[in-house]
Order: sequence, then C-alpha cells, then structure tokens
Amino acid sequence: MTSGNVRPAIDDFWAVIPAGGAGTRLWPLSRAGAPKFLHDLTGSGRTLIQATVDRLAPLCGERLMVVTGNAHAAAVAEQLPELAAESILAEPSPMDSMPAIGWAAALLEVRDPSAVLGSFAADHVIADAEAFRDCVREAVAVARTGQLVTIGIEPTFPSSGFGYIRLGDALDVDGAPSARRVAEFVEKPDEATAQRYLDGGDYRWNAGMFVVRASVLMDMIAGYQPELAAGLRQLAAGQAELDSVWPGLTKIAIDHAVAEPAAADGRVAVIPAGFDWDDVGDFASLSALLPAAAGASAKVLGDPASVILQDATGTVVTGGRTVVLLGLKDVVIVDTPDALLVASRERAQDVKQIVELLKSSERGHLT
Amino acid sequence: MTSGNVRPAIDDFWAVIPAGGAGTRLWPLSRAGAPKFLHDLTGSGRTLIQATVDRLAPLCGERLMVVTGNAHAAAVAEQLPELAAESILAEPSPMDSMPAIGWAAALLEVRDPSAVLGSFAADHVIADAEAFRDCVREAVAVARTGQLVTIGIEPTFPSSGFGYIRLGDALDVDGAPSARRVAEFVEKPDEATAQRYLDGGDYRWNAGMFVVRASVLMDMIAGYQPELAAGLRQLAAGQAELDSVWPGLTKIAIDHAVAEPAAADGRVAVIPAGFDWDDVGDFASLSALLPAAAGASAKVLGDPASVILQDATGTVVTGGRTVVLLGLKDVVIVDTPDALLVASRERAQDVKQIVELLKSSERGHLT
Repeated sequence: MTSGNVRPAIDDFWAVIPAGGAGTRLWPLSRAGAPKFLHDLTGSGRTLIQATVDRLAPLCGERLMVVTGNAHAAAVAEQLPELAAESILAEPSPMDSMPAIGWAAALLEVRDPSAVLGSFAADHVIADAEAFRDCVREAVAVARTGQLVTIGIEPTFPSSGFGYIRLGDALDVDGAPSARRVAEFVEKPDEATAQRYLDGGDYRWNAGMFVVRASVLMDMIAGYQPELAAGLRQLAAGQAELDSVWPGLTKIAIDHAVAEPAAADGRVAVIPAGFDWDDVGDFASLSALLPAAAGASAKVLGDPASVILQDATGTVVTGGRTVVLLGLKDVVIVDTPDALLVASRERAQDVKQIVELLKSSERGHLT
Repeated sequence: MTSGNVRPAIDDFWAVIPAGGAGTRLWPLSRAGAPKFLHDLTGSGRTLIQATVDRLAPLCGERLMVVTGNAHAAAVAEQLPELAAESILAEPSPMDSMPAIGWAAALLEVRDPSAVLGSFAADHVIADAEAFRDCVREAVAVARTGQLVTIGIEPTFPSSGFGYIRLGDALDVDGAPSARRVAEFVEKPDEATAQRYLDGGDYRWNAGMFVVRASVLMDMIAGYQPELAAGLRQLAAGQAELDSVWPGLTKIAIDHAVAEPAAADGRVAVIPAGFDWDDVGDFASLSALLPAAAGASAKVLGDPASVILQDATGTVVTGGRTVVLLGLKDVVIVDTPDALLVASRERAQDVKQIVELLKSSERGHLT
C-alpha cells in the first residue's frame, strides 16, 4: 500500500552499482586516482555515486551493493558511510562490467535466489529521480517474469557515442504498461545512422541499466559464458579465494556477454524512458548540466562569483582562484591544483588523447 | 682611452631609472603591488629593472639612481643589493615622470652641476645592450653641448600605441655622427598616420629616453614649469621636507613639461637608434620576446616542459602547474597563485579593462 505520494521500497529489489571507469575525458578533474563518480559534477553538493544511491534508496532501502576497484573502495566507503562494509565489493583488478555485476548476482543468488537486481552505473546524472524510479518499478515487474530488462533512454540528439536499442513489440505485463520486447541491441552508429534512428522513433539509447532476477542472470551467464558463471558461483559459495579466482574470469562487458545474445533469443525487455539522462562523458556534456553564471555566458562548477568573462563564453571548473576569460568563445577551463586544462568545447572529446599522451610521459602521475 | 673592446664608463654620466607604472595590461602577472619592472619577463633570470641596471652599469658605474614609489622601494633595494640606500628615491605618491626625473636632476645639480643624466624606464627590454650604449654615448656627447637629447627607436610596425619623433636636420657634434635635430614630438597617431610615418622613414618612436645635463634640465624646467623647478630645487637643497613639498609639485610628464616645448624652441636632439626595443606593453608584446617551446607552437615564460599543446598555439606564463592547451589558436594563459587569465592574443590590450573592472569590485585585492 502506498501512503500519500511516497511509494514504499520494493522488498525483493537489490540495487547494484558498478563504480568503475576513469572518466578520462573529464581530465584533469577526473583522474585514475579520483574518477568521476567520486566528484560532485553538478554542483548539487553530492558526488555522482552519492546521488546514484540517493536516487535508488527509495526503491532498495539498505539492499544495495557497490562494486568498485580496490583503489577506490576506501573513498566509496567514506562517501557512503551508511553502507555496510560487506556491501562494498572490491575488485582486485578491472575486469569490465560482466564479472563486476555477475559477482554481485552470484552473491545474491546464494542469499536470495528470487531477488531482483537492478544495475546502474555510479556516474550518470538523472534529474528526475521520480520518473527514473517509475521506470525501474516497471522493469522489476517485468524482471519477475524471468526476463532481462533494460531501460531505454529517449535520444535527444543523433549521438554516435552511445549504443542503441531497437524497440520490439509491446509486452503484456501487469505493472509494466510501457514494456516492450528488445528487437536488438546495436553498436554505436555513425552520425547519419544515428539521425535515422532519431527520426524513426523506435530506437533508444542503451544506458547500461539492467534489471533481472539474480538467478535468471546467473543462468544466462551460465548459458552464454559457462566458465565465467562457474567462477562467479565458486566465489559466491566461498569455495575459492577472490585473489585466485578473479584474474581467471572472462573480461567482458555485460552487453556482449549476456544482453545481446539474450535479445537474439527473445529474452530481453525494455522500458522506454522519458527522463533526461546524461553520462557526463565529456566537458561538453558536463557544461549542459551546469547552472548558468555571469549573465548566462558561462557555465560554472564551483563559485560562480570567481569567474569573470569579457566578450567570452565558456565552461569553467574553478579551483578556488579567480578566473578571467577574455575574448574567447566556447572555451573549457578546468582549474585543479596541479594541472590546468584550456580547451575549445568542440574538442572536448579529445581530452582523452591528452591523457594518453600524459600517461606515456614523465607527467603520468597527473592522469 | 679604450682598452680592447671594453669601453670605459663615462665619468660625468649618471643613470636615472624612473621605476613606475603598474603594467596593468600584464595582469595578473603584473600587479599594483608587484609591477612589471620587478618581474623577469624574458626568462633571462634577471628582472626588468635588474636588466636595465645591467645595461647601464658599463656606462655609469655606480652613478645610478632609481626613483620609485614608496611601496616598491624595499623590493627595488632587494633586487639591486649593490645600490646604496641613498640611490633609491622613494616618492611619497605617484606624480608622473617630470617630478620623478626632476627630483634626481635637482639632486645632481647640487652635487655636480655639469653632470649629464640619462633617464631610462625600468621596464623596457633591449636585447642589444652594446648598440644601446653606443647610442647613449652619442647622446651624452650632444648633451654636453647643452641640448636635451632623446633616443629615437626605428619603428618596426605602424604602432598607434607610441608617440613619435620627427627627425630634423643633421647636427655636427663630435662623437655623435648620427645626431639629428628633433623637428617635433607627435602624439600617438591613428594607424593610417602611423603607416605614413613608417613609410616616410623620418619618424622614430619616442621611448621616453632623455639624456641631458642636470643643470640644463633644471633650467628648462625653470623656464617651462617655474613652480615645479622651485619646488624641486628647494627639496634638493634640503630647505623643505619631502612629504610637505611633494604633494604640491606639478603632476606632469617630462614630454609635456619640457621635451615638447624645448623641441619647439629648437633645443632638442635625437640619436636615431637601430636596436630592437620593446616596452612589453601587453601579452602580445611579451609573447614576441619569449623563447619558442612545444615545437614552436608556444611561447612560454616558465618551464617549457610543463606546457602541452594539441592543435593549439599560444603564450603561456606558467605558475608551476602543468598547462594543457587543446584546439585553440593564439591564446594567452597566465597562471598565478590567486588569479588565472585566459585571453585571445588579439584582445591582449583589453586586459586593462579587466583590471579596471576588478578594481571596482570585491576582487580589487587581485589588481
């Protein structure tokens, strides 16, 4: 029963948050040692992983796990003091998304085989948390029927940076009026193809959100990647040490391991979503999320009063100092204690190349 | 007698260095509290005022005075430890160039009326010191005949930012083969006029360098600005306290006070100079003086290894951090502990406006 507008948590629902990815294109703000999910990138006062937990808590209560790299486990624990120590799964080495999510699924399968898990990245931004949770509720309803369920984001521009989901027939599931079959997952398209997808209306962005019963996911892994499933189940049963099993697991993304083959087998559903979503992939993306400052000519992360523009527009991530931008348009300035980036916004994607360059230089410690 | 290539100092020559001017267009490097003459702007290891002294010492030996604001006297003394305390004249308040130079002239008139003084700004850059000194030697020879002598810089572009000197007839003075009469001083022209000056060949930039007998200069001031001369002579004679006399002096530039009227009276000569000269007026000017770095796409003041460019060109004044510039052309980046400037080079002049803006804001302490 709901009481007023507040809907209760879902008793059999567990949130799993894979917290990986360096956010290389957000350098020098995001670093290998302090990846983007540990930063407050919206000026909300909460870091991305904290906001992710805030968004999920009304659905999962305390049933939440974070899977992250060894190097970040302490920072995650510090940012999420409410989390029990055993809820942070620390990966000995980066192994892509399937082993990470699979590890949590294998543990849940032992603990509560009928549990539905929802996996959501730690570094995405969703303003309308209520709309997000409505979609997850629908996804859970479908997941209980034994499907792998994803949430498909409505494209707002012809992005060639995301994978897409082609919508199939409507499903008839109680509590999930918008659910559709996934016809197929498609890889990142070129821009012309992306434009066709956008115009056609039956494609959604793949935001890597998956909702599925723990046992169903484990059985799918067992079907498509039997060795990986065996390793994960050994681990969850306590039959082997993490450090001995982990390096032998198959390094693979959940999309390739399970979602794509299961879709081909007709076992994947999608809840088409209407909420705004952003993976904050680069500074152009970050800029769109930031509040306007300096008479709308700047987007500022930090103290807007410390940014002064004259015949200029730009995005500024402040580092406490006064920043003056004069006579330049669409510039990105990122001011950190040991590194300063000044870039044109249209080259925001190429920050990644800079990081590669630095990595192989004597300045690798900055990456 | 000269010995080898080393020419001796000039026995009756005194160098006077007016060290004023905030270098506003070089903000945030140059500040009211640390004006440009106190900075090493060329990466030579010597500040502008130190380099000015280095350039003059072979001519004047220890006969050198610096006239500077009260606020900078201590910094000047620290940068020029070889200077006797009484050689630093500390102005109680800024009073433009005539009172500053006139104060030194009045003191010299008492001490050695036949002394020739040469006044040279503390914040100009001259690479070929030997060529400079050759010009000064000619100027001294002419000054001994009772003329006010200036050094006229050969224009390299049609600058509308400098005043000009129109060359008159050749003079016949021993030891000064290039000396000419000054036909007139002209104010900063518009660009078309400056182009005509450049094309015509008989105009020189007025770099504010003056060489003249102390007594001649005092007599000229007495003729054109009698009250000012009286005040300065009172001061030099020890008949009045600095703090009581100074505020009552006429605030005026040496050009208006003496050089222009004396030229009209046919009492000013010029040594046309061939050496490169720069007043480092703004970052475009600074850029031209700096060594190339990063495969010639950057000019860097600071550690060139700390600047990384990708499809970018610019001028970077480093502050110790790594600076990455991506996808932008002709950008000026000035990195200081409390303020960062990012500007297009073509707007370098307008940094002055920014400083005005800051002055009248709560960030006035940064100027």
